[in-house]
Amino acid sequence: MITSTRETKSVIVHKYGGSSVADAEKIATIARKICDRAETGVSMVIVVSAMGDSTDHLIELANAVSGDQTPLARELDTLLSTGELVTSTLMAMAITAAGHPAVSLSGQQAGIRTDTTHGSARIADIKADRLRRELGKGRVCVVAGFQGLSENEDVTTLGRGGSDTTAVALSVALEAERCEIYTDVDGIYTTDPRLVPAARKLVEINYDEMLEMASLGAKMNPRSIELAAVYDVPILVASAFEDVPGTLIHGGPQMMEIRRAVTGVAIDRDVAKITVRAVEDRPGIVGQIFVPLAEAGISVDVIVQNASLEGLTDVTFTVPRGDFQRALDLTKETCADFAQDVVGNTGLAKMSIVGTGMQNGPGYAATMFAALSKVNVNIEMITTSEIRITCVIDARMIKEAANALHSAFELDAAGG
Amino acid sequence: MITSTRETKSVIVHKYGGSSVADAEKIATIARKICDRAETGVSMVIVVSAMGDSTDHLIELANAVSGDQTPLARELDTLLSTGELVTSTLMAMAITAAGHPAVSLSGQQAGIRTDTTHGSARIADIKADRLRRELGKGRVCVVAGFQGLSENEDVTTLGRGGSDTTAVALSVALEAERCEIYTDVDGIYTTDPRLVPAARKLVEINYDEMLEMASLGAKMNPRSIELAAVYDVPILVASAFEDVPGTLIHGGPQMMEIRRAVTGVAIDRDVAKITVRAVEDRPGIVGQIFVPLAEAGISVDVIVQNASLEGLTDVTFTVPRGDFQRALDLTKETCADFAQDVVGNTGLAKMSIVGTGMQNGPGYAATMFAALSKVNVNIEMITTSEIRITCVIDARMIKEAANALHSAFELDAAGG
Repeated sequence: MITSTRETKSVIVHKYGGSSVADAEKIATIARKICDRAETGVSMVIVVSAMGDSTDHLIELANAVSGDQTPLARELDTLLSTGELVTSTLMAMAITAAGHPAVSLSGQQAGIRTDTTHGSARIADIKADRLRRELGKGRVCVVAGFQGLSENEDVTTLGRGGSDTTAVALSVALEAERCEIYTDVDGIYTTDPRLVPAARKLVEINYDEMLEMASLGAKMNPRSIELAAVYDVPILVASAFEDVPGTLIHGGPQMMEIRRAVTGVAIDRDVAKITVRAVEDRPGIVGQIFVPLAEAGISVDVIVQNASLEGLTDVTFTVPRGDFQRALDLTKETCADFAQDVVGNTGLAKMSIVGTGMQNGPGYAATMFAALSKVNVNIEMITTSEIRITCVIDARMIKEAANALHSAFELDAAGG
Repeated sequence: MITSTRETKSVIVHKYGGSSVADAEKIATIARKICDRAETGVSMVIVVSAMGDSTDHLIELANAVSGDQTPLARELDTLLSTGELVTSTLMAMAITAAGHPAVSLSGQQAGIRTDTTHGSARIADIKADRLRRELGKGRVCVVAGFQGLSENEDVTTLGRGGSDTTAVALSVALEAERCEIYTDVDGIYTTDPRLVPAARKLVEINYDEMLEMASLGAKMNPRSIELAAVYDVPILVASAFEDVPGTLIHGGPQMMEIRRAVTGVAIDRDVAKITVRAVEDRPGIVGQIFVPLAEAGISVDVIVQNASLEGLTDVTFTVPRGDFQRALDLTKETCADFAQDVVGNTGLAKMSIVGTGMQNGPGYAATMFAALSKVNVNIEMITTSEIRITCVIDARMIKEAANALHSAFELDAAGG
């Protein structure tokens, strides 16, 4: 897939998100920092997102000219890719003005080749010749994130958080020492600090845990974590402006500081539930419910089926809130002939404890249920993976639940 | 240079300027017109400029991040090229939404190859394979104007008015029937209608005259006119929104309607004058004045040298107003050793009469000077070409001068 050649000089990849490059002043501030770092002699590749809310503005325009139609995916990709081109050229100008030579490269110029899935393309290959040539001339390379070129010579985009993927993929291709993701939060926390005052910033976290915690503060693209895990690229998540230690995401064994079973508490507010009541419990029936949802591109998450009673069963599943009405309508249509009723509810949240240390260990689920019960939080659904236990609860109870779990698993700052 | 192959189906190229595509509503309106025309079965290529003042906004950002330095030309080109990419994708979406399949193509995708002169690149070749393929599928091709790709695989821009050049060059490559330039004025006028109420729209004008009149209402890029003249591509200049006849620029003989010696009166307000007093009249001295100006990229227009008196001479020349201060400072430096004084004045204008009919004919200059004298306009400098006579005058007298000339050469609407 991604081929790489060892550089003679060590390469560092930085990525800056949209809020870190929202205006000319912020770009100039970051450019000065990059310039200082480059002057130490390290080869630097900088991946940038579109400025602030410029992507939203472009989407508004696309909707406005498309009337009642969905904007064409191919055109939308080229349109949105301009946001990152703007930031990359401005950043190259700013770094040069700060005193170190720099050059911007589009996704295409950086050699990022993708499949043809417009809107969420996957990187197929990176032809890093030009990047290496520019680095060899001592230039900082500023790459427009989020974009690539398909085999049809069309611009593609990598989907939400795609600039993270660009940064990790370039780190792999250039065998970078480290990929540093700079953002408006200063690291990965044990849970959402806005809900749990005792939340603590993690010094490190491993890839598997980070994948499960992806919905936490840093909002990283899961695909970028997967890619980093496969090629074992360490990722540092840190603040773009404050000079404080961040969180290192890596594949090695945990260091002493956080040798705990549970690493964090993940919270997902984007949950709606649909229940199909009294389905005939025949082979194949339940599968029929999910085919139309898959065809409509609605991702179904937790699925629970109750024990059968007199040949009838209840099936409950969750979907993202934004897809709720479409999913409900589709399911009612599908089940009209073989179920009694379809009902739904959008006011839910998923509360998960995550940690590789709890793999196959007993007692974590019991502790979780007891902690929730103690603060009167009712559990509506349960699902588990090897390193995660998730409870679906009433969204109004998020705060109580998060604080209770954070404390029950000894994650509080006082206990660290 | 530009190779072409005869299409089986006739091709029409349209170009829309920035004010015609300034917002989503205007884009949708134009898209519907294009759709109607495409449905008649003609192959259509649409060249678009950046929306409204979006280019100015990008230049502001570039200046802001570059501090006291000039923005890097290579980066500025990629930055500015995004403006046309935005319009081209939105227009392709809008045409498709209006009912006819369309596809956007960047300068690169449209095969526009240029030299490496960032900021004012020249088109070296057009590889129109993809354009022909897309047209062959029955799609309207919307090409981002003003941009191309250099042999270094970097984005270049074609300079002010570059989208006109894109449109004419594509017309040549595709052997288009006609190139139609749609803009916020509805044609080429005998002179500026804001100054001369009797100004008349021309039905037609030939390439040579249009080149001289380039500073008139339509503000067309002279390079595009040159290119059209070389390959004999007829250009129609017309209103983007009003359904009224425009002006046809062509190379054929004039039709009856305007068999006049003088076709129009061109007005240029962007004139400053610099005079070097009492220069030693030795060989090579005058040339020395202009070398530093050329190196600084300042274009010198009219140059007049007075008769030598006691071995001393006065040299006067004009420069664009925006370059006045730089030019004055440079010239003072250059001439410190061999001239008495350097003085300047920005309040000037050029007033020209243009027409192929007056080639080598006598009396036109005399009529011009008399007409200006009658309204008390003093002539500061004079310069001529085969089909033009230009007088530099006080800018405050523009209106009187323009009306006097328009009437003296029988261009008034009443006289047509």
